[in-house]
Amino acid sequence: MDEKRLKELIKEKRYVTIKKELEKMNPVDVAELLESLDVQTALLIFRTLPKDLAVEVFAHFSVEQQRELVSLVTDKELKHIVDELYFDDMIDILEEVPANVVKKILLNAKEEERNLINQFLRYPPESAGSIMTIEYVDLKKNMTVKEALEHIKETGLDKETVYTCYVTDANRKLEGIVSLRKLVISDEDLLIEDIMERDVIYVHTHDDQETVARVFKRYGFLALPVVDNEGRLIGIITVDDIMEVIDQEATEDFQKMAAMSPTEEKYLEANVFSLAKHRVIWLLVLMISATFTGGIIRKFENLLQSAVVLTAFIPMLMDTGGNAGSQSSTLVIRGIALGEIAPKDTGKVVLKELVISIIVGVILAVVNFFRIYLFDNVGFLISFTVSITLFVTVVISKVIGGILPMIAKKLNIDPAIMAGPLITTIVDALSLIVYFSIASCLLNI
Amino acid sequence: MDEKRLKELIKEKRYVTIKKELEKMNPVDVAELLESLDVQTALLIFRTLPKDLAVEVFAHFSVEQQRELVSLVTDKELKHIVDELYFDDMIDILEEVPANVVKKILLNAKEEERNLINQFLRYPPESAGSIMTIEYVDLKKNMTVKEALEHIKETGLDKETVYTCYVTDANRKLEGIVSLRKLVISDEDLLIEDIMERDVIYVHTHDDQETVARVFKRYGFLALPVVDNEGRLIGIITVDDIMEVIDQEATEDFQKMAAMSPTEEKYLEANVFSLAKHRVIWLLVLMISATFTGGIIRKFENLLQSAVVLTAFIPMLMDTGGNAGSQSSTLVIRGIALGEIAPKDTGKVVLKELVISIIVGVILAVVNFFRIYLFDNVGFLISFTVSITLFVTVVISKVIGGILPMIAKKLNIDPAIMAGPLITTIVDALSLIVYFSIASCLLNI
Repeated sequence: MDEKRLKELIKEKRYVTIKKELEKMNPVDVAELLESLDVQTALLIFRTLPKDLAVEVFAHFSVEQQRELVSLVTDKELKHIVDELYFDDMIDILEEVPANVVKKILLNAKEEERNLINQFLRYPPESAGSIMTIEYVDLKKNMTVKEALEHIKETGLDKETVYTCYVTDANRKLEGIVSLRKLVISDEDLLIEDIMERDVIYVHTHDDQETVARVFKRYGFLALPVVDNEGRLIGIITVDDIMEVIDQEATEDFQKMAAMSPTEEKYLEANVFSLAKHRVIWLLVLMISATFTGGIIRKFENLLQSAVVLTAFIPMLMDTGGNAGSQSSTLVIRGIALGEIAPKDTGKVVLKELVISIIVGVILAVVNFFRIYLFDNVGFLISFTVSITLFVTVVISKVIGGILPMIAKKLNIDPAIMAGPLITTIVDALSLIVYFSIASCLLNI
Repeated sequence: MDEKRLKELIKEKRYVTIKKELEKMNPVDVAELLESLDVQTALLIFRTLPKDLAVEVFAHFSVEQQRELVSLVTDKELKHIVDELYFDDMIDILEEVPANVVKKILLNAKEEERNLINQFLRYPPESAGSIMTIEYVDLKKNMTVKEALEHIKETGLDKETVYTCYVTDANRKLEGIVSLRKLVISDEDLLIEDIMERDVIYVHTHDDQETVARVFKRYGFLALPVVDNEGRLIGIITVDDIMEVIDQEATEDFQKMAAMSPTEEKYLEANVFSLAKHRVIWLLVLMISATFTGGIIRKFENLLQSAVVLTAFIPMLMDTGGNAGSQSSTLVIRGIALGEIAPKDTGKVVLKELVISIIVGVILAVVNFFRIYLFDNVGFLISFTVSITLFVTVVISKVIGGILPMIAKKLNIDPAIMAGPLITTIVDALSLIVYFSIASCLLNI
């Protein structure tokens, strides 16, 4: 069913048909369809959905839609949604909706759940604790495979995943894991402790979500247990939530490298003041640091006065230097983010950038020399000055572009913030100094 | 076990202990450990591993290590590895190792497998076909749940995943899917056709991997079926491979936006000539397009001659414009890549950027005015000229930064390539024209 058909069916008031068709669809698609309707009609259709589907659809609504629906549904309906939502979805929603909606939701939760919610809301943002869920399958090591499978049959429907089951002792300490695959292919009289894996890879509640994502990618897991400082199992993280984290972390790096303070807000949903705030600070910092570049030019005013033509090549030199530096810093920053480049590789990176910059620098300088000598009519000396400067600038830019993120990493500063926007400013200043020094020297001014 | 302990144990020739400890570890970690040894010792340890583990460890070696091992192992050992590797892992390996190794591997594959391999190697790179695997659980709709579970018990060990099972007819046409969760919680006498989901979401062999990744993220699937043009099930893609794709696609965009032609090679593994090649082309293009900027400056040489101080602000204006434009284009390009911004949103994007740029532009211009008026001693008129130019530049840059990726998307050009590196060049030229026009006008030169 698409938007057009849905609207036609609504016009003809064929709600039974609508319900039947929506039931067959994936909740993600149903949520998207209902978002295209006005909120009253959406609520009307939403109420016809089978309860289980309704909860799943609710979880996939946009924050905006969730907020409006929560304000419209009855307390009884809300209570059902709150009871049936997966815990991590509920936490996500509570973190995004306004305070009055949070209050309405909490009022409709059971007391023990309310306590748990408050505990979860206290985990630092972007920590393992803030993205985990509590609906996992809990087994005991003295169960048989048959008992375990029966346990899953009884409780599995409400679990976020049943494909990895967690074996805990009486104190909730994590003792092992066993996959549903292993359970299904094992003899049913075996004990869980005979088939479980004991060397479990886990994360801590306060680990950063980036660390968690790296563990998932390294091992290809479907789920990962989260334990507290005493090794007690607190929750699990499933791979579907990790895909979002991977995107989020890349987006953050894009933002930082383009001189913005990172935000999770979606572009179209964010308001202009918030967007402006995230941009203006870095622009101010970089603008003021460009004073330095201006100062260099003013110091060489006499030189420029006697050879104004030199000015014409400033943008080309600065831009090429900036581009060359960004290429290097981008590759290195990304390599660090993906765990492919470690601090111990600094020597290799610098050497590599040096060799690359010499190759690239020679090509650019030669092309540039002939281009301006033949077409710009500025004479041999100027062409030569500009081309030598270009070569030196490319080499300096690339080496700095490679080394700066490595230094940042060693100092435990975020390489994307430290190296992204700063490269251009540093390279600008250096390329001007090189340019004017070479010019003074070669042109005898 | 860590590297140090492994090397000690090797020195003491305690191979049985090594084997016992490695067996308990995750194959990913074993592969990393063995990579730290010289290849002869690695092979020695590799041979002590149980066969199943050995194959998994092999799949996680680096390309370099795989190549060396393949050249050292006997044909019989290689045959075992080839037989037991998951199909997608084997294809990955074959795509990366040199031709003589490919030949040696193909010689050790069964004929039917060899044909299949050749077919898979023909799928376009970065297509669904090139990342799928053939080890899925195949059910028939007239099986009972009990029969299905027994089928999984017999064949499940060799499947890439057993958590989603695929129901096909006699012609291999995909009729439905059923999850292992559903099988485990269903009554064992039910027929598969009664519990299977019929509205299956699938991709085609030639779909781009970026499309595939988007489907995974949208629905949170663990696996996705891949069908050919006749709707026959050809293979499946599992979520662990998709996490790599998500990283790869983000890395490609980072590279394109930093003016490089994209490559999948890892930075530390790539040789300098290949890295230089991917960088020099865009640098040349951008360098030559900067001629245009130089031309603008030369046209206004008289103006600069009579007010050399104007030159001092060129870098600041160009950089701020470049930064402001990159901020906008980065957010929009990323939004398009994540599917959050669609071509129909062009109007919204432009309006948003216009409002943001006015807010940001006013702040920057005011701060800049006081900074240069009070500290740079250049007089009111020059300070005013520079600040007005700054404001206009920021507005133009942000609007162009927002609109350029949208135009690229509409023209079906990659927004990251089209908008990333070009922004700076365009903004440079425009900001200079604005600067000199305002200066000529205000300073009466």
